[in-house]
Amino acid sequence: MFTKHFRKVLLVVMLVVFIPSFVTAAEGGQGHGGDAIFILAMLALLVVLAKAAGALAEKIGQVSVLGELVLGMALGALTLFGLNVFEALKADPYVAIFAEFAVILLLFQTGLESDLQRMAKVGLSAFFVAIVGVVCPFLLGTYFVGPWLLPGLTSNAYLFLGATLTATSVGITARVFKDLKITQTRSAQIVLGAAVIDDVLGLLILAVVAAIISAGHVGAGEIVIIAGKALVFLAGSIVVGRFFAPHIGSWLSRVHEGVGMKMAMALFFCLGYAYLSTLVGLAPIVGAFAAGLLLDPVHFKRFQSPRLVSDIEDAMRDCRQNDVRSSVVKAVDEHRHRHVEDLVEGMGQWFVPLFFVITGLQVNLAVLGDVKVIMVALGIAVVAIVGKLAAGLVAGKGADWKLVGIGMAPRGEVGLIFANVGKTLGVVDDKTFAAIVIMIIITTIFTPVVLPRFVKKAVAISAT
Amino acid sequence: MFTKHFRKVLLVVMLVVFIPSFVTAAEGGQGHGGDAIFILAMLALLVVLAKAAGALAEKIGQVSVLGELVLGMALGALTLFGLNVFEALKADPYVAIFAEFAVILLLFQTGLESDLQRMAKVGLSAFFVAIVGVVCPFLLGTYFVGPWLLPGLTSNAYLFLGATLTATSVGITARVFKDLKITQTRSAQIVLGAAVIDDVLGLLILAVVAAIISAGHVGAGEIVIIAGKALVFLAGSIVVGRFFAPHIGSWLSRVHEGVGMKMAMALFFCLGYAYLSTLVGLAPIVGAFAAGLLLDPVHFKRFQSPRLVSDIEDAMRDCRQNDVRSSVVKAVDEHRHRHVEDLVEGMGQWFVPLFFVITGLQVNLAVLGDVKVIMVALGIAVVAIVGKLAAGLVAGKGADWKLVGIGMAPRGEVGLIFANVGKTLGVVDDKTFAAIVIMIIITTIFTPVVLPRFVKKAVAISAT
Repeated sequence: MFTKHFRKVLLVVMLVVFIPSFVTAAEGGQGHGGDAIFILAMLALLVVLAKAAGALAEKIGQVSVLGELVLGMALGALTLFGLNVFEALKADPYVAIFAEFAVILLLFQTGLESDLQRMAKVGLSAFFVAIVGVVCPFLLGTYFVGPWLLPGLTSNAYLFLGATLTATSVGITARVFKDLKITQTRSAQIVLGAAVIDDVLGLLILAVVAAIISAGHVGAGEIVIIAGKALVFLAGSIVVGRFFAPHIGSWLSRVHEGVGMKMAMALFFCLGYAYLSTLVGLAPIVGAFAAGLLLDPVHFKRFQSPRLVSDIEDAMRDCRQNDVRSSVVKAVDEHRHRHVEDLVEGMGQWFVPLFFVITGLQVNLAVLGDVKVIMVALGIAVVAIVGKLAAGLVAGKGADWKLVGIGMAPRGEVGLIFANVGKTLGVVDDKTFAAIVIMIIITTIFTPVVLPRFVKKAVAISAT
Repeated sequence: MFTKHFRKVLLVVMLVVFIPSFVTAAEGGQGHGGDAIFILAMLALLVVLAKAAGALAEKIGQVSVLGELVLGMALGALTLFGLNVFEALKADPYVAIFAEFAVILLLFQTGLESDLQRMAKVGLSAFFVAIVGVVCPFLLGTYFVGPWLLPGLTSNAYLFLGATLTATSVGITARVFKDLKITQTRSAQIVLGAAVIDDVLGLLILAVVAAIISAGHVGAGEIVIIAGKALVFLAGSIVVGRFFAPHIGSWLSRVHEGVGMKMAMALFFCLGYAYLSTLVGLAPIVGAFAAGLLLDPVHFKRFQSPRLVSDIEDAMRDCRQNDVRSSVVKAVDEHRHRHVEDLVEGMGQWFVPLFFVITGLQVNLAVLGDVKVIMVALGIAVVAIVGKLAAGLVAGKGADWKLVGIGMAPRGEVGLIFANVGKTLGVVDDKTFAAIVIMIIITTIFTPVVLPRFVKKAVAISAT
């Protein structure tokens, strides 16, 4: 009855009438107490668009996160054409908390896919990668590219530029690994470990640089305290978590043997650790990643399996065909063992794309207007990437140096935090800030575009 | 190695050390940019506690939502003992948006479990129930219990009291139906339908009463416009939705045949409708319920089934035992048909309890201090319940009048909105407001306590 052609017409009607009328109604502020609901509806629209953009990216051989980022940038650019509805979302605190929740979920998922033992094995490599990945960009930025591309600034300004180049934003890379299904390779684990160490180092660098700029010197005691708090938190949370998690899990499972409780506990661990990590000055995603590392499916084995699994097990009890039985049992077992991950997966499916669309939305494409700024940005972007590629070289045997180096490249929101602190302290001027923003755009897009090309080789190496 | 006794000690350690230290750290405001993360962590803690409270309620033969409500009230009462951490959550806008999202998800789920055809069949009964359920409490409140229990107030005050008693808050009842697994019975469908109609009526009553109080009279044209907008929205959304949903679904499924897109679309429909309903002055949950009614599993049949299902189907292809095969196929089919619901279920599991804990938290138990206020509250609560029980009497054949009447009883947040408007207009004084709040507490607790006792009978009747 309805031809393909007719369906296309319907879709056009939908796009032409429904979405803009929605947006216009909202801009006119006709909502009665519906502001929060409007934000929720817009977020839901963003997720639908993000899924479509991700699918399109995959069709042209890219990872879906690239589609989501580019979509966000495109929607942000609509402001340049006078459509301000997405502009309002940028500054909205509700949007911010949903994006924060999203990236926390993502790093929690990444932690769940990782494994503490395997992480410990790559620990030393990760440490070297983190150190080189901080020292190289810092030296290159402070003593080479800063004075060369931005002559005439104070040495404090170069110091800050160097510091900004040290940051690693692991969200993008974690997502690229997830899209490519290589989170569990040695190279990926090194990058994730190095990103955690980088967050501690970043904390120290920011404290040191800020102290030098505002007080002219830095107290060793202060630095020791900052580093000590962060390290005690990381080490302590792992020891305490390993000890408590199984017992709390087994006790609570007797209170309420339901999937709901399992999910509630998993998310409490995740968000509780995320919050505790902010108390010692670390990023919440570091805590979320640590929580994911700690939570092992085994801790939750007393919890009820979902209804489908039990239905199938009932049905298979009468099966006398061994091959069929074993393949069904295998499918069910895999499902059971991935269960904590699966529970969060549903929520992650919806929330995680939000973070990347909103990250894209934050990009102010107006900074691309100044050619001189772009030239400076390209220069520092090259240094930013080369500095992290150098870090890949110390990743050691069994890892692909290019994969590690490219994985460390995105500066993302961490670099932006540095730049903002510098702006607040008055050492980063508007042009340098704009150049840093462009550098962040470049390094952020760089990883999802380039990393997939090197993956086959890396997987082959890690299999040896 | 670890005895049961030891596990209990561990739990006590957890409760005594971990949670309070968490709370104290937060009250001290030590978080660096961690405010939003703190709220997220507190919400996650509330969900864990809610799941435990729900499980305890079930153990003593109550529905779990009762446990969640009482938990919220108990946490709110901690303020009376000087612990203010949950007090801060009450007024927090982040908490408000998560609670709003939660109740929207709940009504969307309720809509998904309902069916437009079955809903249409009970339409006339629902209409009568809604009308009687509005007229009875209004007349009893305005002309009987108001002048009797609160002598000396203006006739406008009695008018407002009567109006407040007409509200139906369907969140509690929808959840009780869900806990008891009777959402699909005729009685439950009548209550849900009547609640939607009640929301339209409530909109009109509020407009009329507010106009009478502020202008002394009411324009017929204004009322027709308000009613017209709401009715056009409800009728229009159903017609348009029925027409568009299958085609949009089938088109988008060809863009990205993933579970993620399915969930994204489902939630966009849900939140989009919720927002549109606020534009015509209706509650967002009415829109969410309508969206759930419209979305039929069939609209999404082109979407990919989850991996477990496809793995099992692959395994069963070689099965030659017909009985085993048919029971496995049946289990898989049921899973597939419930799939839109299952996708949202995971998210609902975590979010929905939040709404009820937070509803409980909003209850200010300090109002229970004044005996005279309590007496007045008991009087209006009796009228509130009797008025809705009378509505149950017109539910007609095939429905249990007691179930319908009790299901209509909760006033919840809708009653509170009325009372707040009255307070703003100056017709509801502090004591009347306190009495209304207590009435809302009573009617809110009444349904989860009393309704389960009548359920067996109702199910038996609806099966005939």
